[in-house]
Parts: sequence; structure tokens; C-alpha cells
Amino acid sequence: MAFELSPRLASGGLEIARRRGCRVLLKNEANFPWFILVPEVEEGIEDLHQLDEQTFHEVTLLIREISEFVSAYFKPEKLNVACIGNMVRQMHIHVVGRFTNDPAWPGVVWAFDGKLRYDEVRAEEIVAAAKGYLEKL
Amino acid sequence: MAFELSPRLASGGLEIARRRGCRVLLKNEANFPWFILVPEVEEGIEDLHQLDEQTFHEVTLLIREISEFVSAYFKPEKLNVACIGNMVRQMHIHVVGRFTNDPAWPGVVWAFDGKLRYDEVRAEEIVAAAKGYLEKL
Repeated sequence: MAFELSPRLASGGLEIARRRGCRVLLKNEANFPWFILVPEVEEGIEDLHQLDEQTFHEVTLLIREISEFVSAYFKPEKLNVACIGNMVRQMHIHVVGRFTNDPAWPGVVWAFDGKLRYDEVRAEEIVAAAKGYLEKL
Repeated sequence: MAFELSPRLASGGLEIARRRGCRVLLKNEANFPWFILVPEVEEGIEDLHQLDEQTFHEVTLLIREISEFVSAYFKPEKLNVACIGNMVRQMHIHVVGRFTNDPAWPGVVWAFDGKLRYDEVRAEEIVAAAKGYLEKL
């Protein structure tokens, strides 16, 4: 069965790449540099440990690559990496750069209610930077 | 320099094992089956991607093992796995079993204010079960 991105993830994100068996998205939330990795796996595989060994390994390598990009490009104070999925059950991993002056600091972004959309130019700039970074690896 | 567990992590957790270069703790929070993995790395290594490749690989394998234990032993609805560390900066990874009737569902445990300590017998039971599981791998 063909993989389909959940409508909630698709509508809130901008597609950056397909890499290591995952979709890489930029979440349209300008308060934080917030990336989402969605492994293209069957429905029902919702937790990381349910991935087969090879897929698990690829997904963790992608987490590392995206973390490196976020760190190099945005120079955040801290990265927050998480696989939660209590509400959107399609497995997805958050990689978020955090700053001491961001509106949720030091709390977690998943408990933050604000919403700020990117202007198109800035979003395209970030998507292009992430694409370029991944292509050079 | 010898590794020292941060006082905040040490005081809130029960030690289960040392494995794959990490301390494995049970958080003393009976509302959720909540495990914490603390890689024994230098101060200043705070984000997963800063780990060298081999350590990163070991830590991700341990995340998988602990997730498998939590899944098998507690049979939660969902696992939540995260490396956050905005407040306690010593790198630590949360592996938390979540239930639809737990007091924070579907929100995240890091935004939940309650606190419920284990009774000693139950805590020892969980620690023994986790130890036994890891020893058999």
C-alpha cells in the first residue's frame, strides 16, 4: 500500500525532502525552527522500537543529520528531539531548535498554544537551506 | 573526569542498571511508567547529535531496548520518547509509557504538574523487572 502523509502533518508542514525512507518537513510555525520526520512505514507502526532494525537505524541517522543542520543553521541554545504521537498517530519525530528567548522556553513546544506562520520568503529560504545541507552529505 | 549523575536526576530516580554507556533510571513518578537514560558523557555534550557515532549508536539501541521493555511490561497505548533538557542540562532521554487514562493524556508529561511517588514495593518490583529484562537480552 502506498504511504500517505497524514492530512494533519501535510497541512501544517512544508516538504523539504524524502530521505532515508522518511519525509522531512518544516513545520509552519515560525516561533521555533521545527522539523518533522515521518518514516514511510505501514499504518500501525507508531513507536520507534516497532521499526525493523534497518529502518530504525536509518531513522536515527536522519535525526542526527537534521539535528546537525538545525544546530549549524539556527545555532539554538538546545535541541529538543521527540517521538510523541499521542494525537497524530502516524509516527513522526520532532527536531526543534530552542532559544532562551523563544515564547515557550524553558517549557516544551508541545504544550505551547501560540501559532505564527512563516512568511513565504523565509519559509522558502529555510527549506532551500535544509535541502542544500542534506544534498551535500 | 569521572561521570557524575546530576543531583536532580539522581534524587528523582531509582537506579536500574548501567548499560551501553548509560545510567538507566526509573523516575519516581507513579503516574506514568517513566524511564530515564543518562549517557555517561562529558559535561557540555547536551544534544544527541553531539555524541560520537559509536556512542550515538549505543544510546539509540538502549532507547530501543527500554522501549521494548516498557511496551512488553506495561502494555501502554503509546510510547513517548524524548531528549529535551532545557532545564536539567545533563543529557537524558525520557522513555515514557502512556495510557489514555493517565492524568496527562493526550498532553505531554513534561507539561504535567502532578507528582505521585511510588510505594517502595511497587518501585522495587518495576526495577527488578527492568533489570531482569535487560539481563536476558
